[in-house]
Amino acid sequence: MSILRLNNFVAIAAIFASLTAACSARPTLPEPELRGTGDLGIVVERATGSVIVIDTTAQSPLGRIKGLGDLSHASAVFSRDGRYVFVFGRDGGLSKLDLLRRELVARTIQAGNAIGGAISQDGKVVAVSNYDPGGIRLFDAATLAPLADLPAGSADARSKVVGLVDAPGRRFVASLFDAGEIWIVDATNPNLPDVTRLTNIGKNPYDALITPDGRFYLAGLFGEDGIAKVDLWQQELRAETILPNYGKGEQRLPVYKMPHMEGWAEAGGRLFLPAVGRHELLVVASDTWQEAGRVALAGQPIFAIARPDGRYIWVNFSLPHNDRIQIVDTQTLTIVRELEPGPGVLHMEFTPRGEHVWVSLRDADVVKVYDTETFAELASFPAATPSGIFMTWRAGRIGL
Amino acid sequence: MSILRLNNFVAIAAIFASLTAACSARPTLPEPELRGTGDLGIVVERATGSVIVIDTTAQSPLGRIKGLGDLSHASAVFSRDGRYVFVFGRDGGLSKLDLLRRELVARTIQAGNAIGGAISQDGKVVAVSNYDPGGIRLFDAATLAPLADLPAGSADARSKVVGLVDAPGRRFVASLFDAGEIWIVDATNPNLPDVTRLTNIGKNPYDALITPDGRFYLAGLFGEDGIAKVDLWQQELRAETILPNYGKGEQRLPVYKMPHMEGWAEAGGRLFLPAVGRHELLVVASDTWQEAGRVALAGQPIFAIARPDGRYIWVNFSLPHNDRIQIVDTQTLTIVRELEPGPGVLHMEFTPRGEHVWVSLRDADVVKVYDTETFAELASFPAATPSGIFMTWRAGRIGL
Repeated sequence: MSILRLNNFVAIAAIFASLTAACSARPTLPEPELRGTGDLGIVVERATGSVIVIDTTAQSPLGRIKGLGDLSHASAVFSRDGRYVFVFGRDGGLSKLDLLRRELVARTIQAGNAIGGAISQDGKVVAVSNYDPGGIRLFDAATLAPLADLPAGSADARSKVVGLVDAPGRRFVASLFDAGEIWIVDATNPNLPDVTRLTNIGKNPYDALITPDGRFYLAGLFGEDGIAKVDLWQQELRAETILPNYGKGEQRLPVYKMPHMEGWAEAGGRLFLPAVGRHELLVVASDTWQEAGRVALAGQPIFAIARPDGRYIWVNFSLPHNDRIQIVDTQTLTIVRELEPGPGVLHMEFTPRGEHVWVSLRDADVVKVYDTETFAELASFPAATPSGIFMTWRAGRIGL
Repeated sequence: MSILRLNNFVAIAAIFASLTAACSARPTLPEPELRGTGDLGIVVERATGSVIVIDTTAQSPLGRIKGLGDLSHASAVFSRDGRYVFVFGRDGGLSKLDLLRRELVARTIQAGNAIGGAISQDGKVVAVSNYDPGGIRLFDAATLAPLADLPAGSADARSKVVGLVDAPGRRFVASLFDAGEIWIVDATNPNLPDVTRLTNIGKNPYDALITPDGRFYLAGLFGEDGIAKVDLWQQELRAETILPNYGKGEQRLPVYKMPHMEGWAEAGGRLFLPAVGRHELLVVASDTWQEAGRVALAGQPIFAIARPDGRYIWVNFSLPHNDRIQIVDTQTLTIVRELEPGPGVLHMEFTPRGEHVWVSLRDADVVKVYDTETFAELASFPAATPSGIFMTWRAGRIGL
């Protein structure tokens, strides 16, 4: 790790080469059965550094891939053919897995501490946002060979980078937590990316999202109230602060865990965001970006994820309410159902057309599958401290 | 064909069994290379009853599958794993193809004349809309075994069925051209589907679409002006007529070809529809369903398809302007570019995140691939009278 902190690309390339060589030297396994990849996905097992490959048609696990390092807070993106998944570990590990052969095909420890990543619109470039050393690194999606290094902040005060997403046109957008900036990275030339820096966007952006059309980038601010918004369709890119009441200003409760912004919802001209430190879902008018209401919840929301048809939003919670899910009707703004799947509801992932949702129960070491109309539990299987669930349909969506 | 017109399920089942047997008896081919299916698709070759399997990463054809009958006006849907495609032929043929082995795996002549189909949200039921004998038939997606037959209209005056789409909850929605009805078919029990009939919805619905959230079903009316709209989220389902100026009433031009409604666009709270028989794109406010403007075009539009980010709409045309494409900016409502790919621009299909568009040129026997930012032609290859292009990302979308 200490070598890597030198930020030395020669060293990284050498490690990359040795790992690639190690992977190439693996014994040839029997050819797996021919199958489509549109119904595959992974469940991250955070404590054991492994993932379970899942089949959403059979509603069952297919096998496990190990050796992925520290997967607390890990996330993943998919190759455009749906065969490969790139897993971003907390320890800076970037792993490329083959879902068909169920094996690790490439791995690089690209930083000391990382928080997530994205894959370019054309599937050719993988970007990682790093805490330490703070910055963004670009890699070749085919080989994981390093392409570019973009240190964030100043030489003696690097900034952590968060909220990294892809945008149309082989671009990435990210936020600098310490520096209070938003960067738009154009990786058309991935060895020499062009960076547009928006400065003074607000204090301590902690997470961000991009709307499904790739137009609006929204970064939640930890250091002040409000959300920084960038309209990526404008010629002159600039950030403006919206929702001045969104944040900690009027809160009465300690914040147990910052909510994730990726899980948001748009339905009927309204956006739904988990409120920070409050037992509420925030409703925002999507034309004016003004607050348009709040929905009272059972606890502090972590993820608020729309069923793909946008009719309902499924919400999970931080401690001490992390054993349940509440389901909000986006038309009536009422809670239509509460489920208690079990202890430690960490993540929910809908099948692409929304008939099922997969739920990870970290503290029960179980994954459950629910019918989203009847709420019937359709299947369950054991998993070691399951957290993030990611399905291959994400490969075809902007910003996921 | 005459046997089939008896509408005899025993006969259909026998034909189905013989075809399945024929397919099973095929020689065992060498196992094809392992690969993902997220970047696959097909190009329909309408005059030769064949399809070309395409690879959207390599931007090239992979091979051809023949023997699919009359593919004029053919369309296709995909299995949820992205491995299989169901092709709906004009001659009533329903074919199931394996994209990995590139072969026909099942085929049934299920009617004398058909116009399209859909696959249920859970991927288990395929529905076909038939002109002759008019009605809807349901099939098992695994085997193409018949599940149910829903004759439309009366015994001595069957109605043609058009605009068949899937909706959340294993439902299908379709329009009866002659009977002037919209049917909502709940195939939860696929052997005994439950049909909700909306009558007197307007004269001669000729095509329809469902919004990407699966909420609104819109059927264009050939026999009068306007569009029949059904809000599928309402408890009491009913159709209402919107856009009373949409249609033939004020037209000054002969209609060369009715536009397709499936290719529509929503962006910034506005919907864009090809106007019937006019050189215009119709702009509709998505909250009020009132007309909100028109965009002048070079000819009568056939498809108006949004780039996946909704920023631009690509429009092709009927004769005599079917050699070009116009690209409309959804913010400024202006034409930002005109392309002349060649004679007989029949269909356009975007890659799922929108970086490329594939264009079929029927009269040049060529398929071309364009970059949607630079408009550069990236690739082209020969195809026999290419028409519809369908990619596997459709498997994960509602209503496609």
